Amino acid sequence: MAGLTLHGDVFSTATMRALVCLKEKELDFEFVPINMGAGEHKKEPFILLNPFGQVPALEAGDLSLFESRAITKCISHRHASKGTELIYRESKKMATVAVWMEVEAHQFDPEASNLVWELVFKPMLGMTTDPGVVGASTEKLGRVLDVYETRLGHSKYLAGESFTLADLHHLPCIHYLMTAQVKDLFVSRTRVSAWCQDIMARPAWAKVLEMQKK
Amino acid sequence: MAGLTLHGDVFSTATMRALVCLKEKELDFEFVPINMGAGEHKKEPFILLNPFGQVPALEAGDLSLFESRAITKCISHRHASKGTELIYRESKKMATVAVWMEVEAHQFDPEASNLVWELVFKPMLGMTTDPGVVGASTEKLGRVLDVYETRLGHSKYLAGESFTLADLHHLPCIHYLMTAQVKDLFVSRTRVSAWCQDIMARPAWAKVLEMQKK
Repeated sequence: MAGLTLHGDVFSTATMRALVCLKEKELDFEFVPINMGAGEHKKEPFILLNPFGQVPALEAGDLSLFESRAITKCISHRHASKGTELIYRESKKMATVAVWMEVEAHQFDPEASNLVWELVFKPMLGMTTDPGVVGASTEKLGRVLDVYETRLGHSKYLAGESFTLADLHHLPCIHYLMTAQVKDLFVSRTRVSAWCQDIMARPAWAKVLEMQKK
Repeated sequence: MAGLTLHGDVFSTATMRALVCLKEKELDFEFVPINMGAGEHKKEPFILLNPFGQVPALEAGDLSLFESRAITKCISHRHASKGTELIYRESKKMATVAVWMEVEAHQFDPEASNLVWELVFKPMLGMTTDPGVVGASTEKLGRVLDVYETRLGHSKYLAGESFTLADLHHLPCIHYLMTAQVKDLFVSRTRVSAWCQDIMARPAWAKVLEMQKK
């Protein structure tokens, strides 16, 4: 994977997910900003990298990848021994990581992404927040986080005693929701709150946020 | 993974996804039906297997898994050389499978699952279909299938020249949508139509449908 190039927008949750993985793995890469306001993600040349027109996309030599969670998985497997080990090599432990990665994708993300859109991006774009969507997603996300609260009583991180992709994938949405009215969803749950503080304090995450300031 | 037990409902799309994987891998397993009508998936003992109260869950010795796509991945990796090889061993090819598995999960499934719920399960349960949801999801799924139509001009299956988990994960929703008013979404696209016919004709899939007749 020599010659890594990530194309994306530093404020997009999916781009941030790929970026924090690259930073955790301590990999050198070129970052090519895609101006989503100008619709660059829907046009050539970006659309040739991802036919669905969504950031990010990763070029790695003759390999071209999209979908942030496919990018993080491929990077973590290919560079298993570099930087933070974000997956386990032992198959039983890895199965647990696989389960909690799917939990993030299918239980957490649909509601969290709805809330990020309604409470963070819509106001930023001058659009009107839909209180019905906010109410429904807040309630559903609360039930998901109740399960997380119990789970984090059994292990320090979602998939075991060390930080893995199952935790990392949550970072962008948690970051934005901590600035919104639903912050209490996380803060009111003792173990969820401690887990959020822990993963948000990682140096790799600070490096991603630093990229937003430029 | 000796002593495999799958808990689920043979009519649930997620259970069917895990079942067709077990059948493709030619693995012996016990199937424990969960009566969702009686709410068994939300109570003990099932809730101890999946705290989110959703079918299916797999017990494999001392390993307990949930989330259908985590189950299929673990089975396919652990039993790579048994039955159909549903993943690739070569890392570049595997990266492409990872991308198209994420496409199924994040582009195809949200819309397809909405349509299965609105057009198949709601009528079955005596509930009223929401035409707004059907319209929006039909339009979005059409755009996703436009990308599939192009993709399937480059390779026989989504992730390459052989059938992999990236194709398999689509089977349950396609099966139900082929019985609904949106069948034309698939049939009207030549290559998508041929791909659907090909994957639905697999003997492993016939075995899953046979389980629904008992």
